[in-house]
Amino acid sequence: MDLYTHEYFMNEALKQAKIAFEEGEIPVGAVIVSKNRIIAKAYNQTERLNDVTAHAEMLAITAAANGLGAKYLNDCRLYVTLEPCPMCAGALFWSQIGEVHFAASDTKRGFRKSNPAMLHPKTQVFSGMMAEQAEKLVLDFFRKLRE
Amino acid sequence: MDLYTHEYFMNEALKQAKIAFEEGEIPVGAVIVSKNRIIAKAYNQTERLNDVTAHAEMLAITAAANGLGAKYLNDCRLYVTLEPCPMCAGALFWSQIGEVHFAASDTKRGFRKSNPAMLHPKTQVFSGMMAEQAEKLVLDFFRKLRE
Repeated sequence: MDLYTHEYFMNEALKQAKIAFEEGEIPVGAVIVSKNRIIAKAYNQTERLNDVTAHAEMLAITAAANGLGAKYLNDCRLYVTLEPCPMCAGALFWSQIGEVHFAASDTKRGFRKSNPAMLHPKTQVFSGMMAEQAEKLVLDFFRKLRE
Repeated sequence: MDLYTHEYFMNEALKQAKIAFEEGEIPVGAVIVSKNRIIAKAYNQTERLNDVTAHAEMLAITAAANGLGAKYLNDCRLYVTLEPCPMCAGALFWSQIGEVHFAASDTKRGFRKSNPAMLHPKTQVFSGMMAEQAEKLVLDFFRKLRE
């Protein structure tokens, strides 16, 4: 029986996104779950690390592989607050991750616009859970930036 | 006047690929050049780092941004021995890199199969230089692996 629900994990990803927001980063957060336990948490750090590759998903993939001592994440699930971009989708492809759950869609920079079949054929994709909260965070961030 | 030619830089990328080969990594090497000077060298380290994101291009992008103290690589050129995969092309998109030069094509996992328009519209792409040497290294690697 699952002790934690998908909503629980997505809420943990949302908490990561809120840390990013507070730190002046585009607010995207991610967690990776293995055997119903969080093994990696990360938020976007492109500004702090001065590195365009430091998206939440990339940092989480690297941390999860480190934690597991395994390069492939077949038995893992990613929860991320925004639809992954093509870079992150490409990394998720290589990781062969079992499931990807994303909250808000990104119609401009999301991987589906580039190629909806970018993820690994074995990867199951779920979207829309807690999308409003995740999207509001991003919209608030850019509104604040423009002020 | 350019003191170094494109061939010089691609040969430096090839040297990186050869280090990968010696270390049992899929032999792909990359260098990033700014103002006609190499500011980052890297080779694929997915095995050593146990990390699917540790492609030569990704490591080079991170190192170049670090060296420049700038997230964007507009004035830079990437030389890489194999056509970048979608993950790396996505990272190159975010970096807004000025030029991408790749040697061998990767018809199976190269970004052009996923979406030929993945790179930044400002990025100029060149391919085919020293392709035979770069491809031979990869073929030799997999031949050796099968033995």
